[in-house]
Amino acid sequence: MEGLRQRLTEFAAARRWEPFHTPKNLASALTVEAGELLEIFQWLTPEQASAVMADPDRAHRVRDEVADVFAYLLQFCTAVGVDPLTALAAKIERNELRFPVPGAPSEGGDVNSESGSSPV
Amino acid sequence: MEGLRQRLTEFAAARRWEPFHTPKNLASALTVEAGELLEIFQWLTPEQASAVMADPDRAHRVRDEVADVFAYLLQFCTAVGVDPLTALAAKIERNELRFPVPGAPSEGGDVNSESGSSPV
Amino acid sequence: MEGLRQRLTEFAAARRWEPFHTPKNLASALTVEAGELLEIFQWLTPEQASAVMADPDRAHRVRDEVADVFAYLLQFCTAVGVDPLTALAAKIERNELRFPVPGAPSEGGDVNSESGSSPV
Amino acid sequence: MEGLRQRLTEFAAARRWEPFHTPKNLASALTVEAGELLEIFQWLTPEQASAVMADPDRAHRVRDEVADVFAYLLQFCTAVGVDPLTALAAKIERNELRFPVPGAPSEGGDVNSESGSSPV
Repeated sequence: MEGLRQRLTEFAAARRWEPFHTPKNLASALTVEAGELLEIFQWLTPEQASAVMADPDRAHRVRDEVADVFAYLLQFCTAVGVDPLTALAAKIERNELRFPVPGAPSEGGDVNSESGSSPV
Repeated sequence: MEGLRQRLTEFAAARRWEPFHTPKNLASALTVEAGELLEIFQWLTPEQASAVMADPDRAHRVRDEVADVFAYLLQFCTAVGVDPLTALAAKIERNELRFPVPGAPSEGGDVNSESGSSPV
Repeated sequence: MEGLRQRLTEFAAARRWEPFHTPKNLASALTVEAGELLEIFQWLTPEQASAVMADPDRAHRVRDEVADVFAYLLQFCTAVGVDPLTALAAKIERNELRFPVPGAPSEGGDVNSESGSSPV
Repeated sequence: MEGLRQRLTEFAAARRWEPFHTPKNLASALTVEAGELLEIFQWLTPEQASAVMADPDRAHRVRDEVADVFAYLLQFCTAVGVDPLTALAAKIERNELRFPVPGAPSEGGDVNSESGSSPV
């Protein structure tokens, strides 16, 4: 991942695109691309959506939009100086406290009052 | 990254959330979280946006939303069987052909007719 | 609608929010609020989603997010000088040509080559 | 507006698209179209964004995406039985209490504890 992040930085630098790559613009672009990924699914039934990769055209679009979302996420992280792996690891740890496994022994009482029914 | 992806899968399995984690739902959740990241920036001036990490509250929110976007992207990839690193590497290669560096020797003529002015 | 649009303009002016209400910021805010509306539905089954208004809490959130989306859409239109009713009427007319009713007599041959399978 | 909402309903019925027009799908489509509107602005400078309607191509795209967002908002409202004008009027009234005009005489003390700095 670090190598790809580096290539994205060099790619933008070689084309002199850095002035466009502000945190605000990259957050917009990330949202736009996530919407394009969602667009593939918006009229599909749950069955069609689950079989999306069986259709070569749709499978290609899915991989393409995943790449766009991932690229803008990494470029956003570069722009604000955040390590996405560290941020994700910290979030998983917070969520393990916030959403204890049902039936598992709790270490510190009810930490789950906030919104335990909402899947992450 | 592979370790975090694995932890996310186990996290959802332990809480019996897999039935909710369809490709369509995860693509929705990814878009929603990207919107929450954008929300941090929506009323900021370019100057405020560039200094977003100097404000501890905003910095925490940025890291938190980056983690959410990244988590849903990885879970989406698990649900559809796509390797995000492979997808991104393939996309970078296509973009290197599609947006040649200005002034660089072109290897194969004008491959740039499509939309060369739009930064990636 | 015109009266509400006027009230939104006066509301923002009284609070000196116009400098924030650029077309770009309002398009961001519109997308963010649409994401918040989608968030209500993201983990619901189709059955739960269809009965969303039977739950008073969810019904309140739905009306609230509809209002936010509508408000930003009207404010965006004010900022760029677009009449949303005129724009929508023109689009419906284009779509009536683009997606002819199956089995209806066509007035001008096959106008439907573009993407006739995608519902609007 | 009511006439256009009616035409959208008839348009979908004539093409037998109602099964696709669930609240969840329409909320997705609304978010996707809002993202397409934002896409027009994502790489523009504030100056370019403010002059967006001076460019005929961009102006056409803006009107087109405004129409798409508006259409899905109205279709969503039809699907869930919400009157968007009533919802918006109620929201404006709540916001007038929540964000009092600075310097204006307050009718009921400090109603502004929640998040008064965030423009609507």
